[in-house]
Amino acid sequence: MPEHTTAAVGDGFDRNARDAVYRAMFTRRDVRSHFLPTALDDEVLARLLLAAHHAPSVGFMQPWNFIVIRDAERREKVRDLFLAARQQELPAIAEERQALYRKLKLEGICESALNICITCDRERSKGSPLGRSHNPEMDLYSTVCAVQNFWLAARAEGVGVGWVSIIEAQALKGLLSIPEHVTPVAYLCVGRVSEFAPKPDLETHGWGRRLPLPELIMSETFSGQGEVLLKSTVARLNTVSAAPSSPR
Amino acid sequence: MPEHTTAAVGDGFDRNARDAVYRAMFTRRDVRSHFLPTALDDEVLARLLLAAHHAPSVGFMQPWNFIVIRDAERREKVRDLFLAARQQELPAIAEERQALYRKLKLEGICESALNICITCDRERSKGSPLGRSHNPEMDLYSTVCAVQNFWLAARAEGVGVGWVSIIEAQALKGLLSIPEHVTPVAYLCVGRVSEFAPKPDLETHGWGRRLPLPELIMSETFSGQGEVLLKSTVARLNTVSAAPSSPR
Repeated sequence: MPEHTTAAVGDGFDRNARDAVYRAMFTRRDVRSHFLPTALDDEVLARLLLAAHHAPSVGFMQPWNFIVIRDAERREKVRDLFLAARQQELPAIAEERQALYRKLKLEGICESALNICITCDRERSKGSPLGRSHNPEMDLYSTVCAVQNFWLAARAEGVGVGWVSIIEAQALKGLLSIPEHVTPVAYLCVGRVSEFAPKPDLETHGWGRRLPLPELIMSETFSGQGEVLLKSTVARLNTVSAAPSSPR
Repeated sequence: MPEHTTAAVGDGFDRNARDAVYRAMFTRRDVRSHFLPTALDDEVLARLLLAAHHAPSVGFMQPWNFIVIRDAERREKVRDLFLAARQQELPAIAEERQALYRKLKLEGICESALNICITCDRERSKGSPLGRSHNPEMDLYSTVCAVQNFWLAARAEGVGVGWVSIIEAQALKGLLSIPEHVTPVAYLCVGRVSEFAPKPDLETHGWGRRLPLPELIMSETFSGQGEVLLKSTVARLNTVSAAPSSPR
């Protein structure tokens, strides 16, 4: 965890509370391998959904719906969609990485306690689409904010979440009877886990590494150098946060 | 805040820590009116960027960049883009709501301490686009997860964030020299604030109301009834969370 020496405390947030928010972010994982067969309490799931529902949304549109999928047969069909999509994706992967790609575990559809599909109703603000005339995709982005709230709340509850993106959307829509004007944004595997891995799986397995954050910061324009002090501060914090977070 | 009676405590998160995560979500606001002229410490901004950088990303792609915009003249030009876009959007709004639309304050571009444009490099995983063959927009969604991390961390730091979506993307790209293969996902106003409003502005001004969460929950399919217990639990929590959160 980074040090917190210079900041004013946020309205209502003392240092422990602020650290908890950061800890949820730094220790959140895209879970595929560590789901337990334990059931997920409705009380907990309700809190996660409430967190999602408090995401920001363009024009206060709240375009989301939450389809809770528990049925084993339906989930097997969804996994079949994943298996087919993974097979189709393989040729798009660089040849020297295909063996690794095949070994990666990329979903926990059937092992997790339940699945949730978070959708976006593209017509919910019909008539007065505040904020969507120039950027019609803003409703999809709002729905992603709901996904991220759900994910972080889950982490704080000790619940794992994995987002399955290797799936053909039109086939998924058919399987879940999702109408034409509604887009499935995220298909999530959700449940209790044996652990949260210390690093992202894709980092552990050598698929990628975390990029150096200072190189991603630009000043004034996309090619703009500058922000020297900010970048050096970021570099220092990044080093501290790479260490395991202390159990405060 | 909802009650927490039945859940197992999340790995590393005691009840106070978990409540802090929920509090960030329930009290986060899309800030337009309450920015202070106070400068924002680089130490704080660095932590917010580190939070954003720890968002999930498809194939561990980390497609984001962060353009920090402080220059007053540049910001005035961005605000001009907003003003033009708002004028263009007006006819899309239902006639009886246009007077209200015109009165709404929808940005704090020049009053906030600084602006940040969070972008998505669509080609960063070129060669091995894991998870994007069927859903190429997943990189944009990953970038939105970074935006939401930034926003929640800011709330915990007492920093306000407002997302300006009424802006023409191509013009913004020109102004910030953003290359063709990079998409500006979010233009954010960021800074210290005098307060976090108790409710979303659009709710306060009567533009919309929060939808009843139980009606947004579906079972197994998009039209599927069921999940009776979950819905009644959600309805109970929702009532509790509508009250001001207690300062724990």
